[in-house]
Amino acid sequence: MNYGIVLKVLGSLLIVESILMVPSYIIALVTSGKDKNAFLIAIILTMATGLILSFKKGIKAHIRARDGLAIVTFGWILSSIFGAIPLYMGGSTKTYIDALFETVSGFTTTGATILSEVETLPMGTIFWRSFTHWIGGMGILVFTLALLPALGIEGFQIFKAESPGPVAGKIAPKLKDTAKILYMTYLILTLIQIALLILGGMGIFDSLVHTFGTVGTGGLSSKNLSIGHYNSSYIHVIIGIFMMLSGINFSLYYGLYKGKGRLFFKDEELRLYLAIIAVSVVAISLNLLATSYERLSTAFRDSFFQVSSIITTTGYSTVDFDMWPSFSKGILFMLMFIGGSAGSTSGGIKVIRVLVWLKLIKREINKLFHPRAVIPIKVNGRVMPDETIAGINSFIALYIIIFIISSLLVALEGVDLISASTSVAATLSNIGPGLEMVGPMRNFGDFSQITKLLFISLMLLGRLELFTMIALFAPRT
Amino acid sequence: MNYGIVLKVLGSLLIVESILMVPSYIIALVTSGKDKNAFLIAIILTMATGLILSFKKGIKAHIRARDGLAIVTFGWILSSIFGAIPLYMGGSTKTYIDALFETVSGFTTTGATILSEVETLPMGTIFWRSFTHWIGGMGILVFTLALLPALGIEGFQIFKAESPGPVAGKIAPKLKDTAKILYMTYLILTLIQIALLILGGMGIFDSLVHTFGTVGTGGLSSKNLSIGHYNSSYIHVIIGIFMMLSGINFSLYYGLYKGKGRLFFKDEELRLYLAIIAVSVVAISLNLLATSYERLSTAFRDSFFQVSSIITTTGYSTVDFDMWPSFSKGILFMLMFIGGSAGSTSGGIKVIRVLVWLKLIKREINKLFHPRAVIPIKVNGRVMPDETIAGINSFIALYIIIFIISSLLVALEGVDLISASTSVAATLSNIGPGLEMVGPMRNFGDFSQITKLLFISLMLLGRLELFTMIALFAPRT
Repeated sequence: MNYGIVLKVLGSLLIVESILMVPSYIIALVTSGKDKNAFLIAIILTMATGLILSFKKGIKAHIRARDGLAIVTFGWILSSIFGAIPLYMGGSTKTYIDALFETVSGFTTTGATILSEVETLPMGTIFWRSFTHWIGGMGILVFTLALLPALGIEGFQIFKAESPGPVAGKIAPKLKDTAKILYMTYLILTLIQIALLILGGMGIFDSLVHTFGTVGTGGLSSKNLSIGHYNSSYIHVIIGIFMMLSGINFSLYYGLYKGKGRLFFKDEELRLYLAIIAVSVVAISLNLLATSYERLSTAFRDSFFQVSSIITTTGYSTVDFDMWPSFSKGILFMLMFIGGSAGSTSGGIKVIRVLVWLKLIKREINKLFHPRAVIPIKVNGRVMPDETIAGINSFIALYIIIFIISSLLVALEGVDLISASTSVAATLSNIGPGLEMVGPMRNFGDFSQITKLLFISLMLLGRLELFTMIALFAPRT
Repeated sequence: MNYGIVLKVLGSLLIVESILMVPSYIIALVTSGKDKNAFLIAIILTMATGLILSFKKGIKAHIRARDGLAIVTFGWILSSIFGAIPLYMGGSTKTYIDALFETVSGFTTTGATILSEVETLPMGTIFWRSFTHWIGGMGILVFTLALLPALGIEGFQIFKAESPGPVAGKIAPKLKDTAKILYMTYLILTLIQIALLILGGMGIFDSLVHTFGTVGTGGLSSKNLSIGHYNSSYIHVIIGIFMMLSGINFSLYYGLYKGKGRLFFKDEELRLYLAIIAVSVVAISLNLLATSYERLSTAFRDSFFQVSSIITTTGYSTVDFDMWPSFSKGILFMLMFIGGSAGSTSGGIKVIRVLVWLKLIKREINKLFHPRAVIPIKVNGRVMPDETIAGINSFIALYIIIFIISSLLVALEGVDLISASTSVAATLSNIGPGLEMVGPMRNFGDFSQITKLLFISLMLLGRLELFTMIALFAPRT
């Protein structure tokens, strides 16, 4: 491993993080929050560590695969360790592990919380929790990547390891430009949503908080009842739509901007994504109407919000869906695994991998009739290489194995199987709430410290798509 | 499709089935059971239909892939339809669908029942229910296969479609001999277990019934409390061991007989199978000791029995494992999917497929460090072809999709998610009991007729390993 370059990039990352803490510090100062000193200390510690790590000069080197994996894994761990300081020192959480849980939940855009009461938190802390969603959504390192070329470093290996989905595609020939385009798209989505929420009567502060939680597909809120706090269909619908938009591959938006509108709706992953949402919304609406709801419009609004929230792995809620009938809960549980599109801010297995799975099944059925036929798997008209398909299969296999083993470990706490399995799915897929003990009106506060550490690992594993982290700790063979 | 040959083979199958009903009829006659006329009618109807279907003479033809799929699928459906007659006409079930459920559960070696009271059933019916396990365990058609060459038919396509596991291997050059060797091994296991149970004090009739249920990995019992009826550790251990033995690839036993003992324990599937059993038994034993059990020996005995019963997809129980702690129940739920070995009488995904999955994950991690390396997947020292691996991935994908959709359909009845998902796993993997509503002390009787039809389809889908049935009904592309 090239330790010099790894430390240099990690140092740059911490410097960037310390700067990103400044807005929260300003809010803490302005509101005279009890967390203001905590932010100052965190900024100084993070900046100092960053400067020490990146001190070494004159490193101009190529980043190899193993270096990229190390930078991304340790980058996310370090950012979380330093990012947790304001929460712990500001007195928002009782233990440091709780603060780490909350920060990892923020950066990984999970949105799970160990706090039952968030409305009394200091404003700076509320802002920081949600701002971590925004930073983590597009990737902590993608941000840093835009700065790296100035240091003479080309970071495609970092980009690859941090990007969600089986294939990391450059939009522009230069990585720096790709990162800029992605962040510009992200920024535009963010600004539009903030404006629309303010128009709907939500305060500026809460509009920022909930927009960060939406476009980053995070899910942390400034309200105890999440979006259910707002008795406004307009706000429910706006957030529902923006969650859905944030679960779409961002490079498709760039294509739209470049005038390739026809390609947008021809994208097979997007089509399957929209089809899954449509079928789920209709099925849940009918199920709700047949059981507890009286009006189709309300059933439709609530089911659209929840489907959009869960498939994009955001985790906001407007109602306690844990009280919904089994069929509706079962659909949401299934969506927890699917997740959004590759190249979006969402987590989970990703729709593109599900798409390839469906195509593999179709091919296998055809092969029963034509045993000697060689039928390639095509996505958007292009043949998918066998290597990529093998990677997709291995990813899903590993996902399921981690899900099963972790659920068993959580079950050791004596909780029921639905709580155990949905809490694991909710953290591994970076969603936030699950069912029963971790339902939308409850939280992760009752688990033991050791189980919280397991959830912290799962959130990181899920955000970095398993292999990045596992590879680093696996014995080299 | 070659209708002539399909009908001829199906006819021969029904003739064989009618002959296989004779022992049950004799028992009904000897015990003057109320089911004796029902058996006579069933035998006559089945024989007559068989004769009509196989009437056409002089067909000497090669069976193609599509013909093989049709023969196997319709063969299993027809056998079940005729096999259900004695149960319905003999008054053992209220509706014909219930009788069909019970018969499909028998032939597919599932062992799920809609009856809460089995001890008062007529003896002939009890015997027939269990005898269907024995027939279905090795394959209804494999039996018929041994006779087909006399008709000038070579049935490898049938053998392939009915054999459990990703690769159907001939042991002997001639299929007829392979079928004979498999049935001889099966018969020897059966005879040894019957002798051992009788030695343990179990009556001859019940020894036969429980041996059929064990070596066929079925699980139907003549007792309401299943094996828990017998307060004898000897009986629990003997059945536990024979369930485990029946989940091993039968061709390995032939290897042992041929003096290849060293190869036996070098078989990678066998090793993983035994390792999963060992780890599960130890984990559950410790969990039981830490919660409700006082003695290690009892915890070990009960957990071994249950692990052996569930992984081999038998479904017998000695205790109500639905009362066990979440962790233990979670392990059993996981084993429901894994199932036994390929080429055994058990159901589920099969250990060999799980083995290949684990190897795929390991390869993917290696590839992160050596992106250009071409690393083949080897099982027992031989490279597994990409086609077989693709087939394994598609199988597991389809298995999971059928599991999810079916669980949602069952949840529409308003039952909880654990009941819905375990009842589907228990039928799709041909196990029998699940958790909660379908726990070992309860049964499938409370579901609606339409959901019972779903379970019937799942049992057949599982036994014929999904693609055989799906391919036949799928639109040809």
